[in-house]
Amino acid sequence: MKRVAVVLSGCGFLDGAEIHESVLTLLALDRAGAEVTCFAPDQPQAHVVNHFTGQPTTESRNVLTESARIARGKIQPLSQADAALFDALIVPGGFGAAKNLSNFAFVGKACEVNQDLTHLVQAMHQAGKPMGFICIAPVLIPKMLNVPVRLTIGNDIDTAEIVDEMGGEHVTCPVDDIVVDEEQKIVTTPAYMLAQSIGEAAQGIEKLVDRVLKLIV
Amino acid sequence: MKRVAVVLSGCGFLDGAEIHESVLTLLALDRAGAEVTCFAPDQPQAHVVNHFTGQPTTESRNVLTESARIARGKIQPLSQADAALFDALIVPGGFGAAKNLSNFAFVGKACEVNQDLTHLVQAMHQAGKPMGFICIAPVLIPKMLNVPVRLTIGNDIDTAEIVDEMGGEHVTCPVDDIVVDEEQKIVTTPAYMLAQSIGEAAQGIEKLVDRVLKLIV
Repeated sequence: MKRVAVVLSGCGFLDGAEIHESVLTLLALDRAGAEVTCFAPDQPQAHVVNHFTGQPTTESRNVLTESARIARGKIQPLSQADAALFDALIVPGGFGAAKNLSNFAFVGKACEVNQDLTHLVQAMHQAGKPMGFICIAPVLIPKMLNVPVRLTIGNDIDTAEIVDEMGGEHVTCPVDDIVVDEEQKIVTTPAYMLAQSIGEAAQGIEKLVDRVLKLIV
Repeated sequence: MKRVAVVLSGCGFLDGAEIHESVLTLLALDRAGAEVTCFAPDQPQAHVVNHFTGQPTTESRNVLTESARIARGKIQPLSQADAALFDALIVPGGFGAAKNLSNFAFVGKACEVNQDLTHLVQAMHQAGKPMGFICIAPVLIPKMLNVPVRLTIGNDIDTAEIVDEMGGEHVTCPVDDIVVDEEQKIVTTPAYMLAQSIGEAAQGIEKLVDRVLKLIV
């Protein structure tokens, strides 16, 4: 059975992990027979956004605690993730990737990425294990790996330019497809960077999960 | 295009709508080409549960605001739902159905159901429009409709007995199947009342959505 770590970043696209992308990832992995372990950083969210009004609130929430809503309580602190125990890693998107797993949403290309995630991703990469990044999460790759990686965040020109400036090699990609860097074993898909519906997001995510699992040696 | 109302009850299975069930419902509806409108009551949650520890907290959250996380902000107050505008209605499960849409989790068969939901369900029923209830949500049916309805909450004997005492006709059902009351046009499935994985929940929910749409005249 293939063992896959999924890194969540909260619960809700404006301040955490994109819920549809996370659930679609878990569904595709389960249907492929993979054994999934969810992780999230045990830290405060960058902020909390009211998803009905779209406005920030004065509340404070914890990334691990909120991610546990998507994982139905079966989740571990990201600091405890051991690359040796997994065959692959997938990071769904949502602003949580750019606000909680990093500060990309606030400072752009000068961003810093969560240390535990960086160590995990570097260890997986060094071991030749495949990884998938969804939606905005691919922007974190150039900061974590010192090699240029072909990746996509869809077709947003401004974000694509920033990816290239950080050391990535951005490739434009439609919502229903994936970009695969075969050499670095990294798969990316735009999902809600472009999706107009959950069905559109599902197409790319299903392809991503399928390809990540096939890249496992 | 078939127009379907989906009633959410928060965001997280311990104090709100079950996230996987809600997303799987939205996915199946989108793939079937239905036009979906999400609703949730604009009221405080019964309580807030930390989904990592499973323990209640002292926080206060609003059902509509939290449901908006699942609906990506595209959601309306349940009080504004007009049965005349929809061809069908689906209510996903999670403790939110038994804590926020009703107080079934706290008082059992003496429970009261949210008035706006009751009016909506009665209007849909009188108009001969099909409805689907997932997981624990079917327990609300006998309190809202004055006719006996064949329904399932899986195979939990205690809950099934309470359903019968409230006036329902409980039918035992496996996780990958549905119970259909053709006459009353009501479809139910156990989902996470029984599911051991998201894939199992998806099988029943996909059948439920398919059948609800086929029951539309």
